[in-house]
Amino acid sequence: MNGNRFGRLFQLTTYGESHGDAMGVVVSGCPAGVELSAEDIQRDLDRRKPGQSMITTSRGEPDEVRIQSGLQDGYTTGTPLGMVIENKDARSGKYEPFVTAPRPSHGDFTYSAKFGTRNWGGGGRSSARETVNWVAAGAVAKRVLAASDHDVQIKAHVSQMGDIEAPEVSFEEMLEHSEENEVRCAHPETAEAMRDLADEYQSAGDSIGGAIYFECRGVPRGLGAPRFDGMPSRLATAMYAIPAVNDFEYGIGREARTTAGSEYTEDWEFDDDGDPTPVGNDHGGIQGGITTGQPIYGEVTWHPPVSIPKSQRTVDWETGEEKDIQVVGRHDPVLPPRAVPVVEAMLYCTVLDFMLLGGRINPDRIDDRPGEYDTDYHPRSPENVDD
Amino acid sequence: MNGNRFGRLFQLTTYGESHGDAMGVVVSGCPAGVELSAEDIQRDLDRRKPGQSMITTSRGEPDEVRIQSGLQDGYTTGTPLGMVIENKDARSGKYEPFVTAPRPSHGDFTYSAKFGTRNWGGGGRSSARETVNWVAAGAVAKRVLAASDHDVQIKAHVSQMGDIEAPEVSFEEMLEHSEENEVRCAHPETAEAMRDLADEYQSAGDSIGGAIYFECRGVPRGLGAPRFDGMPSRLATAMYAIPAVNDFEYGIGREARTTAGSEYTEDWEFDDDGDPTPVGNDHGGIQGGITTGQPIYGEVTWHPPVSIPKSQRTVDWETGEEKDIQVVGRHDPVLPPRAVPVVEAMLYCTVLDFMLLGGRINPDRIDDRPGEYDTDYHPRSPENVDD
Amino acid sequence: MNGNRFGRLFQLTTYGESHGDAMGVVVSGCPAGVELSAEDIQRDLDRRKPGQSMITTSRGEPDEVRIQSGLQDGYTTGTPLGMVIENKDARSGKYEPFVTAPRPSHGDFTYSAKFGTRNWGGGGRSSARETVNWVAAGAVAKRVLAASDHDVQIKAHVSQMGDIEAPEVSFEEMLEHSEENEVRCAHPETAEAMRDLADEYQSAGDSIGGAIYFECRGVPRGLGAPRFDGMPSRLATAMYAIPAVNDFEYGIGREARTTAGSEYTEDWEFDDDGDPTPVGNDHGGIQGGITTGQPIYGEVTWHPPVSIPKSQRTVDWETGEEKDIQVVGRHDPVLPPRAVPVVEAMLYCTVLDFMLLGGRINPDRIDDRPGEYDTDYHPRSPENVDD
Amino acid sequence: MNGNRFGRLFQLTTYGESHGDAMGVVVSGCPAGVELSAEDIQRDLDRRKPGQSMITTSRGEPDEVRIQSGLQDGYTTGTPLGMVIENKDARSGKYEPFVTAPRPSHGDFTYSAKFGTRNWGGGGRSSARETVNWVAAGAVAKRVLAASDHDVQIKAHVSQMGDIEAPEVSFEEMLEHSEENEVRCAHPETAEAMRDLADEYQSAGDSIGGAIYFECRGVPRGLGAPRFDGMPSRLATAMYAIPAVNDFEYGIGREARTTAGSEYTEDWEFDDDGDPTPVGNDHGGIQGGITTGQPIYGEVTWHPPVSIPKSQRTVDWETGEEKDIQVVGRHDPVLPPRAVPVVEAMLYCTVLDFMLLGGRINPDRIDDRPGEYDTDYHPRSPENVDD
Repeated sequence: MNGNRFGRLFQLTTYGESHGDAMGVVVSGCPAGVELSAEDIQRDLDRRKPGQSMITTSRGEPDEVRIQSGLQDGYTTGTPLGMVIENKDARSGKYEPFVTAPRPSHGDFTYSAKFGTRNWGGGGRSSARETVNWVAAGAVAKRVLAASDHDVQIKAHVSQMGDIEAPEVSFEEMLEHSEENEVRCAHPETAEAMRDLADEYQSAGDSIGGAIYFECRGVPRGLGAPRFDGMPSRLATAMYAIPAVNDFEYGIGREARTTAGSEYTEDWEFDDDGDPTPVGNDHGGIQGGITTGQPIYGEVTWHPPVSIPKSQRTVDWETGEEKDIQVVGRHDPVLPPRAVPVVEAMLYCTVLDFMLLGGRINPDRIDDRPGEYDTDYHPRSPENVDD
Repeated sequence: MNGNRFGRLFQLTTYGESHGDAMGVVVSGCPAGVELSAEDIQRDLDRRKPGQSMITTSRGEPDEVRIQSGLQDGYTTGTPLGMVIENKDARSGKYEPFVTAPRPSHGDFTYSAKFGTRNWGGGGRSSARETVNWVAAGAVAKRVLAASDHDVQIKAHVSQMGDIEAPEVSFEEMLEHSEENEVRCAHPETAEAMRDLADEYQSAGDSIGGAIYFECRGVPRGLGAPRFDGMPSRLATAMYAIPAVNDFEYGIGREARTTAGSEYTEDWEFDDDGDPTPVGNDHGGIQGGITTGQPIYGEVTWHPPVSIPKSQRTVDWETGEEKDIQVVGRHDPVLPPRAVPVVEAMLYCTVLDFMLLGGRINPDRIDDRPGEYDTDYHPRSPENVDD
Repeated sequence: MNGNRFGRLFQLTTYGESHGDAMGVVVSGCPAGVELSAEDIQRDLDRRKPGQSMITTSRGEPDEVRIQSGLQDGYTTGTPLGMVIENKDARSGKYEPFVTAPRPSHGDFTYSAKFGTRNWGGGGRSSARETVNWVAAGAVAKRVLAASDHDVQIKAHVSQMGDIEAPEVSFEEMLEHSEENEVRCAHPETAEAMRDLADEYQSAGDSIGGAIYFECRGVPRGLGAPRFDGMPSRLATAMYAIPAVNDFEYGIGREARTTAGSEYTEDWEFDDDGDPTPVGNDHGGIQGGITTGQPIYGEVTWHPPVSIPKSQRTVDWETGEEKDIQVVGRHDPVLPPRAVPVVEAMLYCTVLDFMLLGGRINPDRIDDRPGEYDTDYHPRSPENVDD
Repeated sequence: MNGNRFGRLFQLTTYGESHGDAMGVVVSGCPAGVELSAEDIQRDLDRRKPGQSMITTSRGEPDEVRIQSGLQDGYTTGTPLGMVIENKDARSGKYEPFVTAPRPSHGDFTYSAKFGTRNWGGGGRSSARETVNWVAAGAVAKRVLAASDHDVQIKAHVSQMGDIEAPEVSFEEMLEHSEENEVRCAHPETAEAMRDLADEYQSAGDSIGGAIYFECRGVPRGLGAPRFDGMPSRLATAMYAIPAVNDFEYGIGREARTTAGSEYTEDWEFDDDGDPTPVGNDHGGIQGGITTGQPIYGEVTWHPPVSIPKSQRTVDWETGEEKDIQVVGRHDPVLPPRAVPVVEAMLYCTVLDFMLLGGRINPDRIDDRPGEYDTDYHPRSPENVDD
């Protein structure tokens, strides 16, 4: 409701501005008993980090996470994890011209219109820097799922940049190739072409849009609540929270509008276990808002970054003057490459939340099954006592 | 969380199955002092009603709403409105073959996988019949907005059916033409072609997908919370709750992926009041998740109805047999025409919710402004006393 | 937030006014697979019903509940239960004098101050008639708990009326005696004295306060979240929602203020299963906000009913006049006797909610344990098909 | 739900353990435009701080708060305030004997029973150290209320310790005297007696219970939602979140059970403004769950601290042995003196939350009234630009 909370049982609450002291995220509802270290989180933060390649902003943030609570001897305790990532390389001066003269297509004007003020350095609270918090939380969710009895795997890659569209790739190809190249496209040749395109736009002082394809494997059937809390609504909420997203589709998505029912419907057959399973997966793993057990997949569209060196026109509401501005900060020419870990993080959080709500993972602790609580109320590793 | 609640301050809680006794919706958080009658609601229910034309199911539901609480002398009291719509024409017998043999691409299997049981008549809780509740709540929201100081107008129309795409229409054309024809397309010639296409698929025992375009005018700037509670996330939640939706986009949507930054960004200029206003509205009325004051617009894609007379293949998990089935119930050949009032209803609810959260409308009562509470605590119309 | 919702996973949403058409409650989050009938609910409604004895209002309400959704062949489906109880014996005329002249110590003035209007017949939305909804929901919660692997038992009785205090009674005595007499006190002699006291105040046109003692047995240890969502906070929320409650305490309650630590603390010993168990239960089954497995008990205080025939003084805000009024409606001389089933209902709802949140009962379905979902997605009793 | 969130529109989310790295609180929903500094918060933290007198623990915590986000040039921005307070003087060694041998009447056992593990140093997450977060958030709420058009004043004092009961004091006496002495009792002579009593128990290696009386002035009438979200339920939730609370009452509280209706009800008269006002305030400022405009008051009971040097008996669930323990940490002999700022903080948060929900304060920004949004979207103090 206040804009900084996501999830129901597995819940993140975030704070921080691009050029503020620190970014922070509180993870509530993480089951106890999961081995977790700062390194587990750092790995994913590094994938999102600025400055990782020529096509990302050169801002030099180490993005080092400190876990300030929620652990005992390296295991989660079931109580909130407080994580803080300090901002180290904020240079707000370049944003001074925009204090009362909003940059085109940013949140500058709307934040000020809503709040009558805003933290203006580096885009403040509306900056994509916020997603560092989400990636930290997503890494926790990934660890929890890995510690459970379930084999949930989530991967995304850049499927389109401008007019360059990657051919369909398998989940295995995504796992193998998407982190090999700077654009995070799992199809190596396409990745090269995308890389060139990004360079081209960057050199021209311009930027370009793109898209990410994602897939979630191993999500058990029967997850998702009817109607307003169906899997699609929650996925959409998660994806639309990511800055600059303009479209979210799942299954065959937009193509569904030109598809006939006889073509769309998928017959049922028995799988090897004798369970009903649909022939095909145009439905994207979801029917009636609830999972079928087939992979969940979809695609998300980003508009181009709006921080571009090209001269743009704005007005200064303080002086009443029109003026030309250039956004000469340090910016990415295309968003999806760095958004891949963000998409994955939000998917991990969303899927885990449904697993907890649906009783697939015990919300209190992961090392026990309901009904067997009473045999084990031992704190872990009592030998490791330090003063 | 439980799947039957929508909204934060203006909140609907629903119940009911397609072939159950009644559909019901509790509207919580409706401000006091708004004139409201069953007729206000009936008007919109009639637009959604089955049997209204040849291209809708022939199920004969009067869809008469009874308001059981929340009014005094024709005005809302600020306390919950309980509304009930009885089901009068349920014929469950035709669904008997599907009890343990799920219809392809319905929620039959997933509901049973989740709950171990389901209300199976007419699709039960997963049926689109549920949307009758939403239209009732949306009619209340529309009344509240009309009673406020704001001039919010919302309209949708069918923009695509199969390969037939309507040309762009103005908001005024939508208001004028979209309710004139059975397919609810605001472009009369296209409407005719769509109507023919629907007939064609219906005659062939088949169905077809489609899309709805919507627009919200008069939504004040500064609405929407940062990040997870931005306007796009909430709109997406609302749209993805509607059965059979596969894609939601706003602004230029999916096209954004092929768009350059220099093309996408919109300069600022002063409007006639001396306020900054963007040149153009490719951003769809939302920047940084918060409204700019420009119209909010977007498009939603429906897959084809999956209840089709054509023979389909399924398996019976009770008997272990494969079998052919025909879904010979009463069904629509295309969903968007009857979904237009549903889209509008969900938009009204969503926008009002943001207006209340953003302090634009007093959440307690609409006839007063904060600070002037004390002068008026009179129940309305005390003369109308009956025993 | 809106005042008509209670619970997190097991959630009730209510509507209705004392003299409106109907009372209604939507129960969301009830697990599937629980046998449930209107009779199960009616039993508890009858215990709360007006007119059941000389010391309750003579209003003649049958309080017949209709379950409009959420069942299939007599078992819950996991989707919302919509329940409606029509008001049959509302006589609003007697409330006409109070429309703009608030009754002393009622919600008349505060509702009008908040909403600028109110449903004034019989106290409208502020009437204790609302608790009929809660008792219906509590009966559902009781059924769910009974169908689970747990043996939770909850009972309350009237422990004090005016100066008459019941001696301590055992849980078994509560079970055996509390429903035997009109005042619902489990100590027969005290019950008689209370009955006489109630008569006395009633005859004098006056009313009297009282208290209820409650106990919950079989609540497993480890329930309740830390800090803001501890068991005490949730119990208090539940009890303070009941009209006319002025005090809630648990464990030794108010006496704790005069108790020394050496006296209060309870040593640990091993129980027969070799589990740590506290010596004594002054802590009321809760330590650190979380259950110990010992019985949860507490006491709730009601102020006297404020609808009394004695002449009272008020002002008419419409006319500006002071005037004497008599509240000659049909009212109870003391509240706890009819509040016993209400207390029990709210406790059942609260405990079940914690059981679901704590993973003790599967939130989707009660007949399966997590991990065994896949073997059974059969709708129940498919043979019982009717058209 | 997860135990670390409080409030609806004005919301705190907390983390931290007694001996962890840091305590932290995220304040969401704070309106923009309120002048706020770390000093504003520090003042209240210092009142709660350990080591402030001989009757508090000697743990040496500076309790210095850092505000990591949510400000621009000293004013709130409407986006989340992240606050961190580092733990500097944690000595966990003394807690080693209790790792698998729970201290009597602490949360040691219940946390382990729930989570299968716990952060055991200093009581971990169940420690009263957590309330430092609440006091920080309460200081923010106090600033917001001070910046509003309303004159809300909240004060508490220690009204009872063991058998020593303070005489009734006026609100002005509380303001003047409650912070003058170590026990925070506003009646100077009683304070001395209480101080002696605390010494006595401390010297004896024992502890004692007590109570706090609170009062909220200037809360406007019409606040609080009906039924489940009435003012009493929310106050009770807040008070029962405070560790070691066993009783919460408001108005005449527990005495109501022996009071007659004719005595309890309060006539209405006109006040100087011609508004209805009740004669007397036995109702504690709340009728029908909604405020009357009269002061809200109540009393909260604490059990004695359970960390006492006296030898106690426990069992070790690892070794299976019974053993004697002494809790020789640094502890308070009585809780209310340091709980006074905690009670006030929770009341400030609760009242502000209702003010925002009830439209009395604009949830987005405090310097504007609804309807006048458009004239001011200027970030504050644009001159104060630094790089």
